[in-house]
Amino acid sequence: MKIGILGGGQLGRMLIQSALKYDDQFYTLDPASDAPCHNISSFTQGNFNDYETVLNFGKDKDVVTIEIEHVNADALAELENQGVKVVPNSRIIKTIQQKILQKEFYKTYNIPSPEFQVVWNGDEKIIMPLPFVQKMNTGGYDGKGVQVIRTEEDYRNLWKDPSVIESLVDIDKELSVIVARNENGETKTFPVTEMMADPKLNLLDFNICPVFLNEDVERQISLITEKFLNAVNSPGLFAIELFLDKEGKVWVNETAPRLHNSGHQSQEGNVNSQFEQMYRVVKNLPLADTDTITYSGMLNLVGAEGHAGKVIYEGMENVLKLPKTYVHLYGKKETKPGRKMGHINVLADSREELMEKLIKVKGMIRVISE
Amino acid sequence: MKIGILGGGQLGRMLIQSALKYDDQFYTLDPASDAPCHNISSFTQGNFNDYETVLNFGKDKDVVTIEIEHVNADALAELENQGVKVVPNSRIIKTIQQKILQKEFYKTYNIPSPEFQVVWNGDEKIIMPLPFVQKMNTGGYDGKGVQVIRTEEDYRNLWKDPSVIESLVDIDKELSVIVARNENGETKTFPVTEMMADPKLNLLDFNICPVFLNEDVERQISLITEKFLNAVNSPGLFAIELFLDKEGKVWVNETAPRLHNSGHQSQEGNVNSQFEQMYRVVKNLPLADTDTITYSGMLNLVGAEGHAGKVIYEGMENVLKLPKTYVHLYGKKETKPGRKMGHINVLADSREELMEKLIKVKGMIRVISE
Repeated sequence: MKIGILGGGQLGRMLIQSALKYDDQFYTLDPASDAPCHNISSFTQGNFNDYETVLNFGKDKDVVTIEIEHVNADALAELENQGVKVVPNSRIIKTIQQKILQKEFYKTYNIPSPEFQVVWNGDEKIIMPLPFVQKMNTGGYDGKGVQVIRTEEDYRNLWKDPSVIESLVDIDKELSVIVARNENGETKTFPVTEMMADPKLNLLDFNICPVFLNEDVERQISLITEKFLNAVNSPGLFAIELFLDKEGKVWVNETAPRLHNSGHQSQEGNVNSQFEQMYRVVKNLPLADTDTITYSGMLNLVGAEGHAGKVIYEGMENVLKLPKTYVHLYGKKETKPGRKMGHINVLADSREELMEKLIKVKGMIRVISE
Repeated sequence: MKIGILGGGQLGRMLIQSALKYDDQFYTLDPASDAPCHNISSFTQGNFNDYETVLNFGKDKDVVTIEIEHVNADALAELENQGVKVVPNSRIIKTIQQKILQKEFYKTYNIPSPEFQVVWNGDEKIIMPLPFVQKMNTGGYDGKGVQVIRTEEDYRNLWKDPSVIESLVDIDKELSVIVARNENGETKTFPVTEMMADPKLNLLDFNICPVFLNEDVERQISLITEKFLNAVNSPGLFAIELFLDKEGKVWVNETAPRLHNSGHQSQEGNVNSQFEQMYRVVKNLPLADTDTITYSGMLNLVGAEGHAGKVIYEGMENVLKLPKTYVHLYGKKETKPGRKMGHINVLADSREELMEKLIKVKGMIRVISE
């Protein structure tokens, strides 16, 4: 089958890597000539935000999917009209890629998500009490396009572009759950993971699994995933990022209509990975088991401050000596501060051992330049 | 690093698949334009038996390795002279690729292997008692170039080309062990697997791990692996195929200087696979853990009799519904009787459950043509 992917980054790369177990042809579209997928797929250099480019790329494929949501969804809708299968469908991509529509979607389907107000041009009266978080309608990614307004003073920083402002949740834990639905309507959910963010970079830092939650929290989460999977009404693999607040209530922070950083530890920690599941969704195959094998955790390899240029993974050889430690690099030649260059998965027999190993590994390796 | 592989078949494909976790560039050389590696590496169509072709292919690589042993070893020796690293080295490839030299190698290093006699042109007096097996000096592969001579009558079938004739072992079990050695001299051994052959096709059929052997047999095997790893004196990953006879003695049947079909179940059954280990050998990195996770087994997907042409995997969708069952296809478009098209790995909690699952899966899937 001819499978086209909009985006040629690490998520596409790991999807293709996993799917090399099967016999499909992968095609990728990315503006960067040296994108991580460029040499393991039939690669087209081009802009996945451009209507004609996406239409041309997709028209001769059996199915088109995405590994980034900031793509031209109108072109995907036209491909659907022309009979090309698009996974997930263009409607849900369009909804999720715009924060305003995404928040309206939660409201419509009664999915708990923080209170919000829409900002169109900054002239509207702000009724949301302080403090609040402002998220740009489009273009937000990895902490970009997000700011917190804490004081009256901060109002002057309010962006005047289409955006949402949301009440701040008093966060106890950040959780994530990856869910999948195939065309036949079969659904599967990965075990919930806990994300531990690095406050400086606002990039996911550790991600661990399983997480022990009380029955009530478990119930809230399964209600959310159920409502979400019914509401999307599209085949797809989705990451639902959740806040558990200090009063034990679960809120949807945001969702992604694609493979997600918070699912990487599934590569060795689960019976099947999010990448295997995504492949099965794209091909409408029976969905894979998502059982946990053991305690697993992931840490991102992010370009160190003050280093830009040809990448060196300082300390890598020592990391490779550690048992049950799996290095995943993304085939990017150049590092820069904060750039996601790879990740490391770690397995352990207990949560304590896991945290100890993750902290140890984090201290052993640095992503620097020559 | 620029890594060149002679051969572009499934072993190379799975090596590259596994090594996509790292940042190297893979180059492959194979006579078939649609070889399994052709679209996931920088591919050169050419004959890996041709001196000039191999020399040209290898001269600008940092390291050259093989995924098939029937390659031009003289060209590899010349590449070594020119300063290109060759893994395993040309000497051991040359030794193993010729059955006569391979048998002499075992004798020299006191590695137990069935008694043998060399046949150069068939004119020599056969002193080996009947029955015996004849193996062609070169070109034997997957059961080709091997025959059993049972009676005086059968003598007329004796091949008159360079070959060895070996005494037949009264086989209790066929075992295999995959061993690795890096340039630093570090060595690691995978757990022993048991191969259960299909007598009709003489292609490895099931391969299961772990195998429970008595202490004496274990001791014989570790002595063999130790002697072998000392004797090869080259970095490399090697498969040592063993016979355990009915009197409890272990014999080396043959060895391969490369990744091997009998190591495929390590993909999901071991903490690291033979492919990860091979990558580490090629790069002279610390070798990976080889611990067993659980009971694992592999069955080959082989083209059914009477079917040649565009492949269909009949029953595949039902196999994908089974838990802890992993399909690995090799990206070959055309099937023919006996062609290795893929394999399926299965995990289980006991040997009984494993055998049950393997037999069930074998009955569910057929490799046929359109």
